[in-house]
Formats: sequence, C-alpha cells, structure tokens
Amino acid sequence: MQAKTLLSEYKAKIEPLLEQFFNDKIKKAKAIDPSSVEMIELLKEFTLRGGKRIRAALIYYGYRSFKDDNEEEILKASMSIELAHAFLLIHDDIIDQDALRRSGPTIHTSYQNIFKSTKDPKHYGISFAILAGDILYAFANEILTSLNLPEKNKIKAIQIFNHIIHQVLYGESLDILSSIKTNFTSKDLEQVHYLKTATYTIEGPLHIGATLAGASQHHLKDLSKYAIPLGKAFQLQDDILGLFGEEKVLGKPIGSDLREGKKTLLIINALETASPSDQKTIQSILGNQDLTEDQIDKVREIVTKTGSLKISQDLVKQLGKEAKASISNTKLHDRGCEFLLGIADYLAERKY
Amino acid sequence: MQAKTLLSEYKAKIEPLLEQFFNDKIKKAKAIDPSSVEMIELLKEFTLRGGKRIRAALIYYGYRSFKDDNEEEILKASMSIELAHAFLLIHDDIIDQDALRRSGPTIHTSYQNIFKSTKDPKHYGISFAILAGDILYAFANEILTSLNLPEKNKIKAIQIFNHIIHQVLYGESLDILSSIKTNFTSKDLEQVHYLKTATYTIEGPLHIGATLAGASQHHLKDLSKYAIPLGKAFQLQDDILGLFGEEKVLGKPIGSDLREGKKTLLIINALETASPSDQKTIQSILGNQDLTEDQIDKVREIVTKTGSLKISQDLVKQLGKEAKASISNTKLHDRGCEFLLGIADYLAERKY
Repeated sequence: MQAKTLLSEYKAKIEPLLEQFFNDKIKKAKAIDPSSVEMIELLKEFTLRGGKRIRAALIYYGYRSFKDDNEEEILKASMSIELAHAFLLIHDDIIDQDALRRSGPTIHTSYQNIFKSTKDPKHYGISFAILAGDILYAFANEILTSLNLPEKNKIKAIQIFNHIIHQVLYGESLDILSSIKTNFTSKDLEQVHYLKTATYTIEGPLHIGATLAGASQHHLKDLSKYAIPLGKAFQLQDDILGLFGEEKVLGKPIGSDLREGKKTLLIINALETASPSDQKTIQSILGNQDLTEDQIDKVREIVTKTGSLKISQDLVKQLGKEAKASISNTKLHDRGCEFLLGIADYLAERKY
Repeated sequence: MQAKTLLSEYKAKIEPLLEQFFNDKIKKAKAIDPSSVEMIELLKEFTLRGGKRIRAALIYYGYRSFKDDNEEEILKASMSIELAHAFLLIHDDIIDQDALRRSGPTIHTSYQNIFKSTKDPKHYGISFAILAGDILYAFANEILTSLNLPEKNKIKAIQIFNHIIHQVLYGESLDILSSIKTNFTSKDLEQVHYLKTATYTIEGPLHIGATLAGASQHHLKDLSKYAIPLGKAFQLQDDILGLFGEEKVLGKPIGSDLREGKKTLLIINALETASPSDQKTIQSILGNQDLTEDQIDKVREIVTKTGSLKISQDLVKQLGKEAKASISNTKLHDRGCEFLLGIADYLAERKY
C-alpha cells in the first residue's frame, strides 16, 4: 500500500479521536467558566482545521515497526505530538505575526477579534494565545502519562517527547535570529533544520513510537539513520513550497520566509552565484514587510536561474534515497516498514 | 523548628542544585549556538534571582510527610515546580506588561534590551520570552522523567504536575478577563484563586511530593483538606501585600493589580460598602496605566476605612487555622508535619 494511503487511513482514525479529546476537555472546562470553554473550542477548531498529521503518524508507525498490538493506546499516544505541534504553531504565529494558518485565522488573530472592542485588542490577542498554546503543551504531557502501556516505556517516551520540544524551541529562537543576523550562514541554517525538523518532525516521533513498543537503544539508532536525512529533506521541501507553492493548497501565505527575512538554503545558494544586481535585488526584498507579488516572482526567477532551486530539489531526492537505504537491512514489522519506505518518497513529492 | 527555618534550610539545599542544573544546560547549549547559551544564562539568573521556593519546599516536605529516604532524588524532583513557576512568571510578565520581577528585569525586558538596535525590540523581546518560558516547561518535565524513583509514582506525579499547570493556565486567562469584564464578581474571583493558588501553589506540589513517596488516594485527600484553605490564605495575603507591601521587600511594583484593573477581594469588599464618592474614586483608578503614588494611597485609605482590609486579614488567619486543624489527626512523618503546621502560620505573616 502507498504511504499516502496509509497516511489517509491513519488520519481517518486520529481525527475523530482528537475531536473526542477536545469534547471531553470542553465538558470539563464548563465546570470552570465560559472563557475556558471558549479557549478549548478555539483550540479544537485550530487543531482539527488541517495538518498533514505526519508527526503523529510517525509515532503510530514507529510503534507498528516493532509491535502489532494496542491499537487504541498507540493512537491515543500519537495525539500528543499533534497537540504539541499546535502549541508550537500558535506561539510561532505570534512570533511571526502571521494572521493565517491552515487557511484560517491564527489563534492570536481569533482572540484579537474577540477583544476588538477593548482598549488593546492586539495585546489581548497575544496574551490569550500564549496561554492557549501553553495549555496544549500541558494536555500533550497529560495524554502520555495516561496511556495504558508499560510504565517504563511511558517514562522514556515522555522524556524523549519533552527533549525534542526543548530542541525545537532552540531551533525556533535560532530561526528568529536568522532574520536579525546579517551573517547567517548555511551552517547556521543546517543547525536550524536539524533542531526544527530532523529531530522534531521525524526522528523524535519515530523514537517515541518505537520506545512505547519497547524498542532497544540499538533500534533507535537505526531509526535515526533513516530519520535525520528524511528530516532535512522535509525541511528543504517546506522551503521550496514556501516560495513556489500555491497559497490555496498550502493554507498559508507564500513568501512568509522572505517577508520575515529568513535565509533558506534556496536564498543562501542563490546569493552565492547570482549577479551583483540580482544579489542586491534579493537583499532589498528580504525582510520587506510589504512584499508584493511581483517581488516574490522576481525572487523565484533568480532562485531558478541561478540553479539554486535545482540544487534543493536534487538534495531532497538524494536525502530521501539515503533514508530509504538506511532501513533496507533493518528488521521491522511490515506495516511500519511499508510506511517508512513510502513516506520517504511521498514527502519529497508533497504539495503542501 | 520553625517553618521559616525549615524553609531556609531547604532553600540552602535547592539553590545550588538549580545553579548546577542550569550550568549543565549551558554546557549542552554551547553545542548548539551562542544565542541558546544566552537564553539559558538569562533563565538561570532569573530563576536564581529570588523567590520563596514555597512550592518546591512543599514537594520536598510532601514527600517527607510519608518517607525519610531519597534525599537527592526528591530535591531534584522539587526543582521541577520552580522551573515551571519561572515559566509561568515569564509568560505572565509579558501578559501584564511588567518590566520588574524579583527586583530585576523581566525576561521580555532583558531581551528587549538585547535587541534594542533592531527595528522592533518590543516584539523581539516578547518573542524570545515566549520561547524561553516554553523551554523551562520542557525542562521541568524532563527532570521529573529522569528521577531515580519508582516508575509508577513518577508517572502519577508527572500527571498531577501537568494537570495543575493546565489548571493554573485557566486561572491566568480568567485573571486577564477580570481586568476586562465589568461584572467580575467575588465568585469569579474565588475561582481564579482556586485555580491559580489553592491547587497550583499548595495542593499540587504537596500531592506531587506525596505521590512520589507512594502515598494513597486517601492520603492525598487528607492533604487537600489542608491545602485548599491554605492556598486561599496565601492568595489573599498576596493581594494584601500587592497593595500594602513594600516594593523593595516585595521585589515587584506595588499597585500592579490596580494598574491592571484586577478586582481583588480587597477591592470587591471595599466597593460594596464604600460611599458613592469613594466607589467612584476606586472605579476611576482601577485600570489606570499611569497610576500615581497618591492614587495608591487613596485606595489604601478606602480599603482600610471600609473595613475591607480587616476582613481579608481575618480571613487569612481563619483559613490558616482551618488548614492546621485538618491535619491534626493525620499520621504524617515528623519533618513533613512540622513544616506543614509551621508554614500555615508563616504564610499569613509573610512580608513578601
């Protein structure tokens, strides 16, 4: 079966569970007060609005790579990373001052609207969004503690879970710096990718799932050899889509990285070989808050003609191959293995 | 021995451990990049700058109420709530737009200074402070997972830990609302107190410590009877100090609650019995961003002459007594019991 089909199957199972989870929390929040209910309603809509659920699927299939049992508990476990991801996105959106996420308003924008008649809607928007994000992180940890799985495995999984969150937060802060620092190098960028994607998006979730199944340190190391190149490929594809994708399909504004002045590999490589005048053009566009469609087109043109786009595209393919090769000799249960091999192809071809 | 002495003894043990903890994290952050090191340095200074360490001491003595062993592990465990508390304060300070905390700059203010030559220092200040807070929460969870204590107890403790964080976050959001809603009642206020202090400051830490020692559900219930009234007393005393305390001793601005328009019990009771003109005076001062010393004095005068101050002071004493009475028949180990009885007196008399 194709990875895309396996991912769809997984999504069809996890979405109702997420909905159920939030409905339970809403019921409990009713005992507190209406504003708490409102917060969870917003978080529910935000979390269910979209998302590929790749991280959650990797927890699920990470477990399935070693064990075939416990369907209910492992599905529940996999929700934790979706909640944590929503938490990170909510805080990220405040930081990036983005109004749109997954084709809908960001949480601080929703709250800004709720408090539009107060004296400082913007500040209230940020304030409630900070707390709403925090609460999702608490929920995510609570879910992991409540699993009906061996305590030893759970503790280890919670440790990995919080470790990757702290790593991705370092990555986030480096990422903000990339828009401030003038001398941000491709080595700095690799560090951001490693922290934000390789460990957080691919390796971490896989390790959490495998750990819950009782996998050994040795097995985790094998999974890392698969996860690290795949994580890099995922991030590079993200950068490509962020510049060349379609806003409607992607669910977020094209050119955000440019607007925030972020130096993706596409930009770094283009700057290295572009003509002096093209270099100047890119530099003048980077960090421009009032980016126009024409300017985005201009950057696309330079990134394409310098060969920078091709370099990133080729790298995505090469890293995907590297990932697949790494598990060809590893003994994994069928359903897990099938997904891991398939997803490596899928991630490089994805359009959103 | 007096509770104050026991608290000092505990502080002398925990502060070097916190320092050691942050030094380890700084060492690890060096492998990432200088900005991550800078973040941990700021968090270290902020966490070590002050604080009563009451929550952490309650984890410690909660354990000591049932067991006398494992000094090292239970001290380590108790650090978790100090890190979580710093996380909550950092986010709280962004929300309250406070520049001062524990007699030093708040984290968003420190970052604002670091980025003062960029185009938007205020936004960068908030952004990095959000992430810095988040990272402390991750650290707190990591500490709990790494304890050398029975896994069953650890899992339960992590569950309580994250549950009280999510409760306090609900309390926080209600607290912001109190400055927006015009019809904020004393019942709403009680809810805020319950969420923000009773469960989070007293009951939660006690339960975490007791759970790590393997205490039964029955024992936890007994501790709740002590914790809930004490938590209320603690919050009321906090409100009194926030209006009548000394800024130098307290380490934060006097009158913050007034400035933020928060309706403490002191204000609610004063409004109920004050003359119409005094009521008007309070209403005009509540939420005033440019609060003067004279205005604070005026509110103090009204709160005193209406008897509202006395009501709160008496309530603090009564709740302290209630707490002590509740554990007089409970069988607790000596060191834990001594602390719990003593701290109930101490909290009502504290000056900061």
